[in-house]
Amino acid sequence: MHVLIHTDNDSARWQRVLANALPGARIDTTAEVGFIPATYLVVWQPPTALLDAQTETLKAILNLGAGVDALLSNPALPDVPLYKIEGGGMEAYMADYMLYAVLHFYRGFDLYRAHQSARQWQPQPLEEKRDWPVTVLGLGTIGAHVATLLCEHGFTVAGWSRSPKALEGIDCHAGMDTLEPLLGRTRLLVNLLPTTEATTGLLNHERLARLPEGAVVINAGRGATLELTALASLLERGHLRGAMLDVFPNEPLAPDHPIYTAPNVTLTPHIAAPTPIDDAAVQLAERLERLEQGECVPGVDRRAGY
Amino acid sequence: MHVLIHTDNDSARWQRVLANALPGARIDTTAEVGFIPATYLVVWQPPTALLDAQTETLKAILNLGAGVDALLSNPALPDVPLYKIEGGGMEAYMADYMLYAVLHFYRGFDLYRAHQSARQWQPQPLEEKRDWPVTVLGLGTIGAHVATLLCEHGFTVAGWSRSPKALEGIDCHAGMDTLEPLLGRTRLLVNLLPTTEATTGLLNHERLARLPEGAVVINAGRGATLELTALASLLERGHLRGAMLDVFPNEPLAPDHPIYTAPNVTLTPHIAAPTPIDDAAVQLAERLERLEQGECVPGVDRRAGY
Ligand SMILES: NC(=O)c1ccc[n+]([C@@H]2O[C@H](COP(=O)([O-])OP(=O)(O)OC[C@H]3O[C@@H](n4cnc5c(N)ncnc54)[C@H](OP(=O)(O)O)[C@@H]3O)[C@@H](O)[C@H]2O)c1
Ligand SMILES: NC(=O)c1ccc[n+]([C@@H]2O[C@H](COP(=O)([O-])OP(=O)(O)OC[C@H]3O[C@@H](n4cnc5c(N)ncnc54)[C@H](OP(=O)(O)O)[C@@H]3O)[C@@H](O)[C@H]2O)c1
Repeated sequence: MHVLIHTDNDSARWQRVLANALPGARIDTTAEVGFIPATYLVVWQPPTALLDAQTETLKAILNLGAGVDALLSNPALPDVPLYKIEGGGMEAYMADYMLYAVLHFYRGFDLYRAHQSARQWQPQPLEEKRDWPVTVLGLGTIGAHVATLLCEHGFTVAGWSRSPKALEGIDCHAGMDTLEPLLGRTRLLVNLLPTTEATTGLLNHERLARLPEGAVVINAGRGATLELTALASLLERGHLRGAMLDVFPNEPLAPDHPIYTAPNVTLTPHIAAPTPIDDAAVQLAERLERLEQGECVPGVDRRAGY
Repeated sequence: MHVLIHTDNDSARWQRVLANALPGARIDTTAEVGFIPATYLVVWQPPTALLDAQTETLKAILNLGAGVDALLSNPALPDVPLYKIEGGGMEAYMADYMLYAVLHFYRGFDLYRAHQSARQWQPQPLEEKRDWPVTVLGLGTIGAHVATLLCEHGFTVAGWSRSPKALEGIDCHAGMDTLEPLLGRTRLLVNLLPTTEATTGLLNHERLARLPEGAVVINAGRGATLELTALASLLERGHLRGAMLDVFPNEPLAPDHPIYTAPNVTLTPHIAAPTPIDDAAVQLAERLERLEQGECVPGVDRRAGY
C-alpha cells in the first residue's frame, strides 16, 4: 500500500510512527514527494492541488483530526470513503480543557480575576456541583467522554445529539425539538458539535437568549456553530456571565475582532484537543490494514456532514 | 454534653447539623448565648474573651478547619486537647483548586491570556504531563489526596513531609535535607503545609531560586510559608513563570499590596477549600461522642504545631 501524508505539522513524525506500525507499506510525505497519486491520503487540510492530483488508484482519505468540515467543503474532494480520527487520545485532552473551563466559572476564577484587577478581596460562597447543570451538545467520541467525566466530577449533566443515546448518569436528549427546553435549564453550555449544514449558526441570538441569566458558553466544537455577535451582545447586556472559546468562524482570529475584548471572555487558539500522534497512529494503521484487506470500514457520513 | 459553637460563618447551620447528629446534646452558638463556659468549644478563630470565659468544665476544643495556626497563636488558649477537621470533604475542594491551577499553567492558559490581551493567535505545543514534575509540600490529609489525584491525572508527582510516607505512585521524601534537591527538579511547586515555626519563611528567596527556570509556585497552604517579596522578585526577573496564590501572610490582603500586580500571578481570597458543613459535622459528631465516652482521641500535636 502507498500512503501519502500531508500536514503542516509534524509530517515527518507521522511518517515515522506510521512506518513503524505498517512495516510493509510505502509511506511518503508531500514535503518529500510533492503532490502525487497515492492509494491512501492521510491529511489535515489538504490543498486542492493535492486532491486534484489523485487518480483511480485512490482508495480512501483519512483525516488527521476529528473535524472533517474543512475537507468536506473542499470542491476537489474525490468520491472515495472518508475517515476521521475517532478519539485517539483527543478525548482526554478535550476533557482536561473542559474540566478547566467548567472549574473556571464554577469556582469563580473569572470573578476573582476581576476582583484582583480591582484589588478587592471578596470570597464567594461555594455552591454544590449538582446545582450547576451542564449541557453537552454533541455526544460523539469526544462529547460522550467529556459528559461522562463532568458527571463523575459531580456536575448535573445533560447531553444532546442527533440520534438518541443512552449514557450512564447523563440525561440524554436528541433532535431539534428538545434543544430549546434543554437550553432553558442549562447553566454551563458546552459545544462539541461538528460543523455541518444543520449545526451552522445553531447557537444564534434566539437560542442563546434561552439560556438562563448568568449562564456560560464554552465552545471547543467549531466556530461556525456559535454566532459571536449574538454571544457578545448577550454578554454586554449581562444576560450571560462569560464564555470560553477555542474555535472561531475564521482561524486565526483577526487581530481586530471585537470578541477579543468582550466581557469575561477567555480565548484560546484552537488548542483544546490536538491529535496525539502516537495514539492516533495506532488507529490509522489498524484502519489502513482493514481497508487494504478489503473490509468494509464505516467512516464519515457525507450526507450528514460528519 | 454542652457544645458551644463560634464562627462568623453559618453558625446557625453548624448548630442545626450538629444538633441533628447529636440528639441528646445541648448545642449553643455564641451568637445566641454569648461567651459562656462549655464542655466542648467548636470554633473558627475564637476571640480571646471566649477562651478566657472557659472553666475547668472544658474538655476539648474542636477547630472548624484544617489549619490550627490562628488558634495556637492565641495566648488565651486553654490547656485542653485540640482537634482539627481532617479532610471532611475539604480535600475534594482542594483537589479541584489544584487541578485547575496545574492545568492553568500546563495547558498554557496563562500564556493565552497574555496573547488575548495582545490580540495574538499563538498556539503552543502541548507537552506530556509526565514531563511536568509536580512537588507537593505537605502530605497530610489534604496534600496526600492532591498528590494522588495529580498522579492519577498523569503528572509526575513527588511529595514532601516531616515523617517518611509511602504513597502509591508518589516519589515521597521527608525532612529538611531532601527539600533543596527536590526543588531543583520541580516544575510545579504546590504548597499544602501548615504554618508552624518550622514552615514559616520556608519558601524564601534562596529556596525559591533553586526551582528551575520557568517553574511555577502554587500556594494554598498558608501565607506565612512563602516570602512574597522573594516570589515577586523571581517573577520580575523571569526566573519563575507564574504563581497562583490563595493564602497570604495577612488576610484580607491589603489593597495596596504589590503582589496584586506581580507578573503572571493569579490571586484568590482564601477560597481553595472551605469546610463543607454536612460532611465535617459527621466527623465532629463522631469525635465528640468518642471524647464524651472517655476515649483517647489523637488530635493536634501542639509541639509540632499542627
Ligand atoms: N477544538 C479542538 O481542538 C477540537 C478537537 C477535536 C474535535 N473538535 C470538534 O469536536 C467535534 C466532535 O468530535 P467527535 O470526535 O466527538 O465527533 P463525532 O464522534 O462525529 O460526534 C459528533 C456528535 O455530534 C452530534 N451531532 C452532529 N450533528 C448534529 C445535529 N444536527 N444535531 C444534534 N447532534 C448532532 C452527533 O450525533 P449522533 O451521535 O446522533 O451522530 C454526535 O453525537 C469535531 O467535529 C470537531 O469539530 C475540536
Ligand atoms: N487554602 C485553603 O482554603 C485551605 C483549606 C484547608 C487547609 N489549608 C491548609 O492546608 C494545610 C494542610 O492541611 P491537612 O489537613 O493536610 O494537614 P495535616 O493532615 O496536618 O498535614 C500536614 C502535612 O504537612 C507536613 N509537615 C508539617 N510540618 C512540616 C515540616 N516542618 N516539614 C515537612 N513537612 C511538614 C506534615 O508531615 P507529617 O505527615 O510527617 O506529619 C503533613 O504531611 C492546613 O494546615 C492549612 O494550612 C488551606
